[in-house]
Amino acid sequence: MRKENVKVIVWGLGSMGKGIAEMLLNKKGVEIVGAVVRGDKIGKSMYDFLDMERGDREDLLTGSYEDVIKEGVADIVVIATDSFTRDSFDKMKYCLERKINVVSTAEEMAYPQAQEPELAKELDKIAKENGVTVLGTGINPGLIMDLLVITLTGACIDVESIKAERINNLSPFGPAVMHGQGVGITVEEFNKRVAENNLAGHVGFPESITMIADALGWKLSDEIELHRAPIVSSVYRKAPYAEVQPGDVAGCNMKGFGYVDGELKIEMLHPQQVEPQLEGGTTGDYITIKGTPNVNMQITPEVPGGIGTIAMTVNMIPNVINARPGLKTMIDLPVPRAIMGDMRELIED
Amino acid sequence: MRKENVKVIVWGLGSMGKGIAEMLLNKKGVEIVGAVVRGDKIGKSMYDFLDMERGDREDLLTGSYEDVIKEGVADIVVIATDSFTRDSFDKMKYCLERKINVVSTAEEMAYPQAQEPELAKELDKIAKENGVTVLGTGINPGLIMDLLVITLTGACIDVESIKAERINNLSPFGPAVMHGQGVGITVEEFNKRVAENNLAGHVGFPESITMIADALGWKLSDEIELHRAPIVSSVYRKAPYAEVQPGDVAGCNMKGFGYVDGELKIEMLHPQQVEPQLEGGTTGDYITIKGTPNVNMQITPEVPGGIGTIAMTVNMIPNVINARPGLKTMIDLPVPRAIMGDMRELIED
Repeated sequence: MRKENVKVIVWGLGSMGKGIAEMLLNKKGVEIVGAVVRGDKIGKSMYDFLDMERGDREDLLTGSYEDVIKEGVADIVVIATDSFTRDSFDKMKYCLERKINVVSTAEEMAYPQAQEPELAKELDKIAKENGVTVLGTGINPGLIMDLLVITLTGACIDVESIKAERINNLSPFGPAVMHGQGVGITVEEFNKRVAENNLAGHVGFPESITMIADALGWKLSDEIELHRAPIVSSVYRKAPYAEVQPGDVAGCNMKGFGYVDGELKIEMLHPQQVEPQLEGGTTGDYITIKGTPNVNMQITPEVPGGIGTIAMTVNMIPNVINARPGLKTMIDLPVPRAIMGDMRELIED
Repeated sequence: MRKENVKVIVWGLGSMGKGIAEMLLNKKGVEIVGAVVRGDKIGKSMYDFLDMERGDREDLLTGSYEDVIKEGVADIVVIATDSFTRDSFDKMKYCLERKINVVSTAEEMAYPQAQEPELAKELDKIAKENGVTVLGTGINPGLIMDLLVITLTGACIDVESIKAERINNLSPFGPAVMHGQGVGITVEEFNKRVAENNLAGHVGFPESITMIADALGWKLSDEIELHRAPIVSSVYRKAPYAEVQPGDVAGCNMKGFGYVDGELKIEMLHPQQVEPQLEGGTTGDYITIKGTPNVNMQITPEVPGGIGTIAMTVNMIPNVINARPGLKTMIDLPVPRAIMGDMRELIED
């Protein structure tokens, strides 16, 4: 086993980065050697951003990326700042060129080949030139509606079609998510924002659908279809960062469809809303594979998105460090696993 | 993409080997180049052993292992003849020394480190010396009660304990399984055979439990406990290869327990019987992870064992060919996936 702790830089201390930092601080054989932030957040104690006490740990001051990220100072940078590959590209490039591995929470990075094939090629090239690895992961995309689906098809001789459904409760999330999903607005406003391409809904269906298709060897014949519809509440709903009047929008019902030879093969349904139980909704993750054999899986309640993404990101760190150089996705690497021992034991020589 | 088909030798044409051969014959970019059998089964058409017509395919004659397995003739040998590592060891060694990769359906080979650490080391050494890879897989052990559990822990910040339960119907299986599980015998006979260590029950709990513990970094503190109890039927039950009188044994209720620091951390329950629905039993696969977050998964009905093992074995072939040399287990390789395209596209250069 290596003597030195696994050294991690956390880039971004928003809700994901903060959770990742807290999880890392509670694990053995790993340490945070840098925390990258912007503007007037620079130069503060990292612990000012966390919900845990520093205790007798040495303090760690946040810094700019130029000051913190230098060749040789870390095994890996966790970048938790963006949803889109394009927005995160320069950050990843900066790390990789300093010969440091990268794991990204950007949803599109779970399978950048889907919507950013040129950037994906470029990332692969830069990573290989520098002998390091870059991976995007998270709970979804990253596990629930793609890797888990693919893993279950491993038990199938043949697959005819796949349906993945994730019904979750948005209430724990903050104002950015409420805005992105249109929670609390009127139906007119929702439809207007959809028409203006200004309502993200769930980011990740093109990534999950393409990952599944590529893993199984299906060639998608049509462009992936995405639909965003308002979930209209018939009751009053309230969450920490949103309030929904009867007749207004409780969230976004996102659907995605992947076709092979013109036939619907991959169907994704992901209604996200606050307080679904007020209208009898049951949250959960559901996978239905039609094939030989059929597989009907459910996880109830759903695996929570925030905790899940934090866990997936940290739990994949050893797999990324051990991987051959290049851009990797979840279907290229061994499965994620909870790290209950010393992280150093998981690092190959 | 490589031009040549992936070349496979199937060793054993029992119910698993036969199913594997049939599955391979229906896939693209792969061909069976040899079928190994024993005694008076040698020299016959492979199709005599299958439930499918040869059609316009070229005939293939079965042969002895010495005649069929030669360096350069195949990419991989699928060995479907044994449950125990010890029984299969010489066969695997023979293939590996001829520089051919191996995938084994032997339950113990899913994690030979658990009960045969010396043989596991030896296999790893032989495989590395010859630049090839050996893997054991199947539905269980191999996926349902180990790899799938581990994958779901990937969404967890912390894990306190794990319970995996598989409730299945043995009715589709043949006389060997009926005998191994004690179906149709009296309770006295069952208990006598357990006492004489002559009733296998499920083979694989030490493998699944050790795989999970090693994956998560838990050190098992006690020997793994295994319990075999008779499932006493209160009604008459009938299956193709067994008949159970009221008061007699419908199957074996197998339990396995893994302890860490003296505390029960991994609990496995696997009651296997014919026609459980006659007494209100619902078949399914159930995984309960207590941790942050809790994860409660169910697959109903259970993923069928026979089809599942056939599929897992074939679906892992590309991953084995692509792997670095040595003994690998399911936690070392990318996830299995149904192969719906050309298998050659999955082979790396």
